[in-house]
Amino acid sequence: MAYLDHAATTPMLPEAIAAMTAQLAVTGNASSLHAAGRRARRTVEEAREALAESLGARPSETVFTAGGTEADNLAVKGLYWARRAPGGGAPARTRVLASPVEHHAVLDAVHWLGEHEGATVEYLPVDTYGRVHPDALREAIERNPDDVALATVMWANNEIGTIQPIRELADVAREFDIPLHADAVQAFGQVPVDFGASGLAAMTVSGHKIGGPYGIGALLLGREYSPVPVLHGGGQERHVRSGTLDVPAIAAFAVAGQHAAEHREWFAREIGALRDDLVSAVRAAVPDAIPGGDPDGRLPANAHFTFPGCEGDSLLLLLDAQGIECSTGSACTAGVAQPSHVLLATGTDPDLARGTLRFSLGHTSTQADVEAVAGVIGPAVERARTAGLS
Amino acid sequence: MAYLDHAATTPMLPEAIAAMTAQLAVTGNASSLHAAGRRARRTVEEAREALAESLGARPSETVFTAGGTEADNLAVKGLYWARRAPGGGAPARTRVLASPVEHHAVLDAVHWLGEHEGATVEYLPVDTYGRVHPDALREAIERNPDDVALATVMWANNEIGTIQPIRELADVAREFDIPLHADAVQAFGQVPVDFGASGLAAMTVSGHKIGGPYGIGALLLGREYSPVPVLHGGGQERHVRSGTLDVPAIAAFAVAGQHAAEHREWFAREIGALRDDLVSAVRAAVPDAIPGGDPDGRLPANAHFTFPGCEGDSLLLLLDAQGIECSTGSACTAGVAQPSHVLLATGTDPDLARGTLRFSLGHTSTQADVEAVAGVIGPAVERARTAGLS
Repeated sequence: MAYLDHAATTPMLPEAIAAMTAQLAVTGNASSLHAAGRRARRTVEEAREALAESLGARPSETVFTAGGTEADNLAVKGLYWARRAPGGGAPARTRVLASPVEHHAVLDAVHWLGEHEGATVEYLPVDTYGRVHPDALREAIERNPDDVALATVMWANNEIGTIQPIRELADVAREFDIPLHADAVQAFGQVPVDFGASGLAAMTVSGHKIGGPYGIGALLLGREYSPVPVLHGGGQERHVRSGTLDVPAIAAFAVAGQHAAEHREWFAREIGALRDDLVSAVRAAVPDAIPGGDPDGRLPANAHFTFPGCEGDSLLLLLDAQGIECSTGSACTAGVAQPSHVLLATGTDPDLARGTLRFSLGHTSTQADVEAVAGVIGPAVERARTAGLS
Repeated sequence: MAYLDHAATTPMLPEAIAAMTAQLAVTGNASSLHAAGRRARRTVEEAREALAESLGARPSETVFTAGGTEADNLAVKGLYWARRAPGGGAPARTRVLASPVEHHAVLDAVHWLGEHEGATVEYLPVDTYGRVHPDALREAIERNPDDVALATVMWANNEIGTIQPIRELADVAREFDIPLHADAVQAFGQVPVDFGASGLAAMTVSGHKIGGPYGIGALLLGREYSPVPVLHGGGQERHVRSGTLDVPAIAAFAVAGQHAAEHREWFAREIGALRDDLVSAVRAAVPDAIPGGDPDGRLPANAHFTFPGCEGDSLLLLLDAQGIECSTGSACTAGVAQPSHVLLATGTDPDLARGTLRFSLGHTSTQADVEAVAGVIGPAVERARTAGLS
């Protein structure tokens, strides 16, 4: 079995499993005042320090959430609501700038703000690799710097692997004092991610994409920002996010985060080399396969192809039958018979965009996985094309 | 050590730990189409069936969330938004009816709707036990049945243990076609909870309060209701809640849910008897202690007291030093130097309301725990009173 869908979810690291199971049998609500509660709180705060360190952030900038989707929603909606009604006579800002290649957790949140909460949503132009040019952000802001609530551009794309010039984009945003949020769910562990140096106002990370557990994520959030909560309640997490802290998942997330930071160079080098082999093998077997995303500035573990004349879903299932697990795009929209919004935004022909596959590698990937793909991709594409004609 | 704070969080059941750890090493995003994804999806759907059965609900009525707080927010805000802008020429409903003794996850969500989303919030009157009378709900609705967006009344109170007449309240709400939500986080496993028979539109449950893991909960939701999502994204969970499904936590939650349903009668009988012993012991040691909540219709595991002349926090820490772990009220607001909103709503004098303690028992409680309290509560109260005088 060749699992090549690590961008959907990657196996938990043994260290993270150990950290998690060690906590499952420990009782104590981190908000309780008694000894069991204080012990749980200590576990949480030590994990917060470790995770913050692995992301170049301060512990006080680290807000735990139930995952990437919640962190994205908190950043986008929370900052919007806070800037729409800032108080103190400041102007109400309602324009939201977003890249059109965002994950659905950002895109659908932004869309909802436009439909229901009075936002004017503007999608920033991208090039054929899905990149937002800093000048495009500048131009959009300069049209009226006073009405921009926030901008959101993902650090690296989950489908085609393109890395955005986040530092340059953040510099533009800061010039106008506009908060920029980046979904760094795919970037963490694959490219250098330093929240402090990035200039970002907010940044999303997720546990289960880096070898940690499901159900845990974080929003890195500059101390000067107070987004309106998406989840109201007990007031945990800086009164920005409520809900009982998930002590075992937080402890395991921190372990995975440290591992991701410490092994990032190894990952980029070794897994990047495997990915390059995979790309070469696919292109050798299917010469007209079109590689997607930025050929240079891209995630080391991501390989993306368009196979002209194929339905991606058919190809996916043919490969699955041969023991190769990959996806057509984002797992979150798997089974939806629509071409990817990411491909369409980069100007790909809608018919072509139906024939995509994403191979995403991870910490357990091996040369054998690459060889498995090399051995079957040619006949599988051939068969998918024949099926498409019938 | 006597852990008597099970309402804050209760130890995971060994069966739930086993179900969780068995899944931690299994890889697969339940939204992925390949074999690993389909296996994860099967685990989720089997868990959904089991949990639904233990709550008298249908699998299709079971929406997994990251916990009770998220489920409460989804019910309250989601139903409000859906009924504020119902489409099809139906009237915009903006009145929200809530009991004043709700958990902060409901109360703060309702308050926010009032402050920021155009809701008119009305708190229903409660009696000295914190009970909402069905006639009070009827009276509030009848003032204008056409403008009520939703009503929300918790099944059983987390601080004082009072059980609400949920079935009767739901009957009133259904008469006017108004959705009633109940937070059943504390009720599940302690009193008979049957969603189908309850007449409720929506009901919140949580994993870590019944021996399951943190970070998982569910909103039971009638098929005819489509709340506006609080978390937008990939569209998992009936397009009502997005975010990658937490397969291990879902599997463990279902195991805990089945255990809660199967052992409920045993729990009510055995743990209820222990609780009665604890109440007798405290009253014998401190004759002027005032029991809180409904003496009859109450959670079997909850004991609540007001100790005149004491600060609850001081008393809590004195007991903690003796190895007894309890709380003053909700863990979520621990450390907040304000009298409980629940006590104030029941008409308790604010000075008195500072001197409360909640002992909450659970599946690991023993006679030894009761004896430990009996042995130290008298001198501890004495000491707290002296400290209060100085």
